[in-house]
Amino acid sequence: MSVTHIESSTLEVAVVATGQPLTVPVYQIKGNGDGPNVYIQANMHGAEVQGNAVIFQLLEQLKSLTCFGNITLVPLANPIGCNQKSGEFTLGRFDAITGENWNRGYHFNPQLPVDFASQHPDLDESTINQKFRQLLIEDLAAQRLNNPYGAKTSQLLCAQLQRMALDADIVLDLHTGPISSRHLYCPEYAKDKAKLFDIPHVLFIPSDFDGAMDEAAFCPWWHLQQAYERQGRKIDVQVDAFTLELGSQEWLSLEEAKKDSHSILAYLQSSGVIKATQFNPADMTRYACELKDYRALYAPQSGLVEYLAPFGQPIKAGQPLVQMLHMERYGFDDCITSVNAPDNCIPVLHFASASVNQGTELYKVMTNYFTL
Amino acid sequence: MSVTHIESSTLEVAVVATGQPLTVPVYQIKGNGDGPNVYIQANMHGAEVQGNAVIFQLLEQLKSLTCFGNITLVPLANPIGCNQKSGEFTLGRFDAITGENWNRGYHFNPQLPVDFASQHPDLDESTINQKFRQLLIEDLAAQRLNNPYGAKTSQLLCAQLQRMALDADIVLDLHTGPISSRHLYCPEYAKDKAKLFDIPHVLFIPSDFDGAMDEAAFCPWWHLQQAYERQGRKIDVQVDAFTLELGSQEWLSLEEAKKDSHSILAYLQSSGVIKATQFNPADMTRYACELKDYRALYAPQSGLVEYLAPFGQPIKAGQPLVQMLHMERYGFDDCITSVNAPDNCIPVLHFASASVNQGTELYKVMTNYFTL
Amino acid sequence: MSVTHIESSTLEVAVVATGQPLTVPVYQIKGNGDGPNVYIQANMHGAEVQGNAVIFQLLEQLKSLTCFGNITLVPLANPIGCNQKSGEFTLGRFDAITGENWNRGYHFNPQLPVDFASQHPDLDESTINQKFRQLLIEDLAAQRLNNPYGAKTSQLLCAQLQRMALDADIVLDLHTGPISSRHLYCPEYAKDKAKLFDIPHVLFIPSDFDGAMDEAAFCPWWHLQQAYERQGRKIDVQVDAFTLELGSQEWLSLEEAKKDSHSILAYLQSSGVIKATQFNPADMTRYACELKDYRALYAPQSGLVEYLAPFGQPIKAGQPLVQMLHMERYGFDDCITSVNAPDNCIPVLHFASASVNQGTELYKVMTNYFTL
Amino acid sequence: MSVTHIESSTLEVAVVATGQPLTVPVYQIKGNGDGPNVYIQANMHGAEVQGNAVIFQLLEQLKSLTCFGNITLVPLANPIGCNQKSGEFTLGRFDAITGENWNRGYHFNPQLPVDFASQHPDLDESTINQKFRQLLIEDLAAQRLNNPYGAKTSQLLCAQLQRMALDADIVLDLHTGPISSRHLYCPEYAKDKAKLFDIPHVLFIPSDFDGAMDEAAFCPWWHLQQAYERQGRKIDVQVDAFTLELGSQEWLSLEEAKKDSHSILAYLQSSGVIKATQFNPADMTRYACELKDYRALYAPQSGLVEYLAPFGQPIKAGQPLVQMLHMERYGFDDCITSVNAPDNCIPVLHFASASVNQGTELYKVMTNYFTL
Repeated sequence: MSVTHIESSTLEVAVVATGQPLTVPVYQIKGNGDGPNVYIQANMHGAEVQGNAVIFQLLEQLKSLTCFGNITLVPLANPIGCNQKSGEFTLGRFDAITGENWNRGYHFNPQLPVDFASQHPDLDESTINQKFRQLLIEDLAAQRLNNPYGAKTSQLLCAQLQRMALDADIVLDLHTGPISSRHLYCPEYAKDKAKLFDIPHVLFIPSDFDGAMDEAAFCPWWHLQQAYERQGRKIDVQVDAFTLELGSQEWLSLEEAKKDSHSILAYLQSSGVIKATQFNPADMTRYACELKDYRALYAPQSGLVEYLAPFGQPIKAGQPLVQMLHMERYGFDDCITSVNAPDNCIPVLHFASASVNQGTELYKVMTNYFTL
Repeated sequence: MSVTHIESSTLEVAVVATGQPLTVPVYQIKGNGDGPNVYIQANMHGAEVQGNAVIFQLLEQLKSLTCFGNITLVPLANPIGCNQKSGEFTLGRFDAITGENWNRGYHFNPQLPVDFASQHPDLDESTINQKFRQLLIEDLAAQRLNNPYGAKTSQLLCAQLQRMALDADIVLDLHTGPISSRHLYCPEYAKDKAKLFDIPHVLFIPSDFDGAMDEAAFCPWWHLQQAYERQGRKIDVQVDAFTLELGSQEWLSLEEAKKDSHSILAYLQSSGVIKATQFNPADMTRYACELKDYRALYAPQSGLVEYLAPFGQPIKAGQPLVQMLHMERYGFDDCITSVNAPDNCIPVLHFASASVNQGTELYKVMTNYFTL
Repeated sequence: MSVTHIESSTLEVAVVATGQPLTVPVYQIKGNGDGPNVYIQANMHGAEVQGNAVIFQLLEQLKSLTCFGNITLVPLANPIGCNQKSGEFTLGRFDAITGENWNRGYHFNPQLPVDFASQHPDLDESTINQKFRQLLIEDLAAQRLNNPYGAKTSQLLCAQLQRMALDADIVLDLHTGPISSRHLYCPEYAKDKAKLFDIPHVLFIPSDFDGAMDEAAFCPWWHLQQAYERQGRKIDVQVDAFTLELGSQEWLSLEEAKKDSHSILAYLQSSGVIKATQFNPADMTRYACELKDYRALYAPQSGLVEYLAPFGQPIKAGQPLVQMLHMERYGFDDCITSVNAPDNCIPVLHFASASVNQGTELYKVMTNYFTL
Repeated sequence: MSVTHIESSTLEVAVVATGQPLTVPVYQIKGNGDGPNVYIQANMHGAEVQGNAVIFQLLEQLKSLTCFGNITLVPLANPIGCNQKSGEFTLGRFDAITGENWNRGYHFNPQLPVDFASQHPDLDESTINQKFRQLLIEDLAAQRLNNPYGAKTSQLLCAQLQRMALDADIVLDLHTGPISSRHLYCPEYAKDKAKLFDIPHVLFIPSDFDGAMDEAAFCPWWHLQQAYERQGRKIDVQVDAFTLELGSQEWLSLEEAKKDSHSILAYLQSSGVIKATQFNPADMTRYACELKDYRALYAPQSGLVEYLAPFGQPIKAGQPLVQMLHMERYGFDDCITSVNAPDNCIPVLHFASASVNQGTELYKVMTNYFTL
């Protein structure tokens, strides 16, 4: 029983050397205008495919739901990264030519909110929302899409995606870690909403801009709020944006994707995007920490690695995270070594390879964590 | 209680552009001369690290065993490949400069056994063994190590390892598949010995030379046997060589390695290399097929892949091996497709990535299989 | 004044992971049926772009010439390789997933000519040409395009190109070296035609199959001739095929391309493909050698390289080809070393990078060369 | 006639997965204490080898000169990057695992100079120099070398090099462009010294920190000057640091290196580092612009590229920089296109490959340039 029409189109986001355009599929559901608009994308990093399956499961369910807001879903968002293989794995985390992380090419001009607030001190919030949004769209076009010097491949790709996200009130960017548990990047101002997702690890990020999609979506609006606040006026941050890390890269499971789609639908239901009551957050332990307390542990020495610490379980300072084998040292005490947690922490993800250089990121762990 | 001395040394096998030598660790146990000599190496392909752990466990046990033959163990055999990273994974299957598979750089001159048999029709087998071995050593030096035009990086590396293997009567090359079950490459003439290993899948390979270590070890001797046979004389093939594929790449487990070390010790005990009775082959089902019946199934179309078929369990022709998701086709019947087994088969390994091009190897399967 | 219509189409040769087809442009000129048919392709290795400019210049001239034979021109023949970047350069010599050289994926079944000659001992040559060609087309389809197990990415790409080449009597595959002079791979049976090209270095290749396009084009026909000869009958080799190496990779010059197009037109004119008299081979020195005498010189040690020997000029055994700088050895005599020619030779190409490992190919040189 | 002793040592800067240390050679000349100390390194990006030859030529001349200051020279500064090959080229611009530019891993804590100036308002300049230098050394050790969480591979490498540079008053980092003319990055406060080098293009960089060696060397001291200035006191910036781009990557010429060594000696002579009068800046045109006016031009479309504009010659807005060939468009007007200069400019470098994606950097040009 399909009550909702899903409009399908393709958008050209890049052109390869031999002239063929690379496109992304765009699926759009028109809401009845009574709810916030939503933009969801997946697979910006080439190896992080599971979000595509989550979009598949979302579409399967949205087609029989009534939507208040418009929903735009973009799987396979980075056809350059998705197609960048090196050996048996997808090398799609950064541009193979420049090394630039694909999820750092979005645009934000911090001068815009400052100027806007000063020029329009007294506009009503709905007009602010509309006019400032228009300003962001025009700035993106001027800086990226119509720049006389052109723009970088990653900037062009990001600008096409960002253009769609600029129409939304809610932005969800679906990623995965390397070998990873589910975790959520949540802006500090939206802390209350972290409990709507069935995601056991939450990182509260400051509202700074480092080039990522979630930041590009909320930073202009958060800066605008701050600018008005400095002028003595209180307005809401108009946009929510989250990065969801849904397990491990190079892994696809339609069944697990279904669970994540329910979790997202619970958030959308709570946010008034869909007409539904059946999607509700699970009763579960959710650990959280500040981004500054989300620490990477780097290999103190090179070697072969057996990852010991399971995800999601608190471990004590001094307990081993990995065991390392150094076969050039057989017969010596340091043929097998361990790397221990410097602090009490919860492991969230680990490196994808069993052999590491000195200085390779072994684990990422939450320290100074607390429950939500 | 260590009854056996393990001699440790390092061998320079390559020099990188900045002038530093790359070395491999070499561990040697001196036997009492009453058994065959053994050469075991691991990690010739950079991502296939588990064999190093197996060598660790072998050493741990050999140190308290009496050895009849000399045993040489070389972990981390390819320091170029082991250190060739591309993104988060080890790109160590082929030379990053030339694309050449590291395990195809060994040397064999098929003219040598023909000429030797014709020149020495009547030598006794022990003298044949000694003189022909010497000839192989000299030919390797002339063609590779002392060639006035030099030799390729992969040839130089392989020649250094092959030189050590040339002293042995038994050669074991420890590999892994991409995502893989345990399987064994066994020369057809040594079929009887396949049951000594606790490895559930066996591929019987013809005695041709395609550049790999196992072939480089046994081909000269098998060709020699054939040459004598054509002269009407029957001699034994003097060397046994096997490639053991011990699970998946980019994976390390000391516990699993212990099991594989027991399996190898069972073979060594049976071959008269070690003084022991406690290591015996497991009672288990071993499937085998000819190499020509070990088939790769290539992706008929590109897309995202969920690997469905478990390893080691017979599946019927027409049953699905993988499920593919094509998110650019949502709303069409072919958004989800499956790729089915063309024949009755047993899946042995599958590709490491969840996204594939048209023509990527999805699975390798045994067809026309039988039990040993 | 365009007297000739150039038909333009595109052919899908691969599909990338995100589902987009990769296509090659195909330009076709219909002859009047009085001359041999020609297939010309360029850029099978991704970095070797100059052949595309040569096809451009050929088209510019062919459009005002009368053609006796059909001419098919395929620039940008390998859209996977052309689009495979790694850092600032095109990594398009081998499949980034498997390491397989793109120009080794063509198909040839040596049993076909043997069986054909035995089944059709007395057919006239024109019927042989037609029937055997049909057989090759059917075999290619069965082994590659319609194989129930699928085929490798490189095999699928090659099969699509080979299908077009199978219709031709003349096949030209346009490549370049790394840093390189112009040189020609010419089958031994077609020696007389080497002087038709304005290419100063010629390598006579034996008529064996190693997977390359030129071999795939002529081997079936040469094997067929041999098979008939063994049956006591003399027929012509029905197909000519050459690989032209037109300078250096990662380099484009429309002006130099014009020169090469004239050289190709001289060959086509002499072969009766085009109605023209104005294209004639230059009066120039052409050096040649057998393929076995075309030697690679590998770096005896690692280091930084200054390439000294110019291309095309004979140098004496013992003269330096390169000067190497080893900055980790300053203060020692071997801080600067040279690598000398082992034999009298003519340098044809050298490696593209100024830093090398031990065993990197430094130069390729012709030894035992002679003038044509 | 060697009047100066060159001390040679090696420094371990990284350890690869198989356990071997990677080292850099360090050459040190002890001055008599009457001049500033100098640190010169080369080859931080793997393909940029020419600086090593310049260090060779510097050493050849320094060995017969009297030095007032200590001079430390470090060729082959990045043994990881130098050894990272991908295909025939060196992929050494960024860490192959993380994508991080090797020349962005240096450390600077902007709080240090602020706190120091406030704590030591009245120290004499020589004590400031000594105490603040000590503080920088301690902070580097705490943040990078002795961090309980470890540090990234690139940070560890950079920290080892930075530690040496922290002892110097003058820091020269020798790089090259891709295909490039010589150009100099010069901090704005050191404008007067740009004319001491024989380098025709000069980019004046603001005194901000973006992770590069030159910035890491001068930023702390420039920030310190600023901090004192805000306290109403005027001190000199104690350190000069320049990045010299000495031509193209993947290219080695001992002869050209000699010219660059003279240019550097002219600067060192003028700075009172060496006792000499024979090294003097050439009388030549030097163009300069602000960094913000040094513009990259990105490919507006993909295709094959013939680079037309020579380096170092002013061209007018609207004139073509490159000609692009789009062989999928033969027969259409846009088969050949050009990309024109958006402004009057001087081309300084261009991309290394002849085929580009949409958004690839084609050229870097100086706009709003002026002569020094």
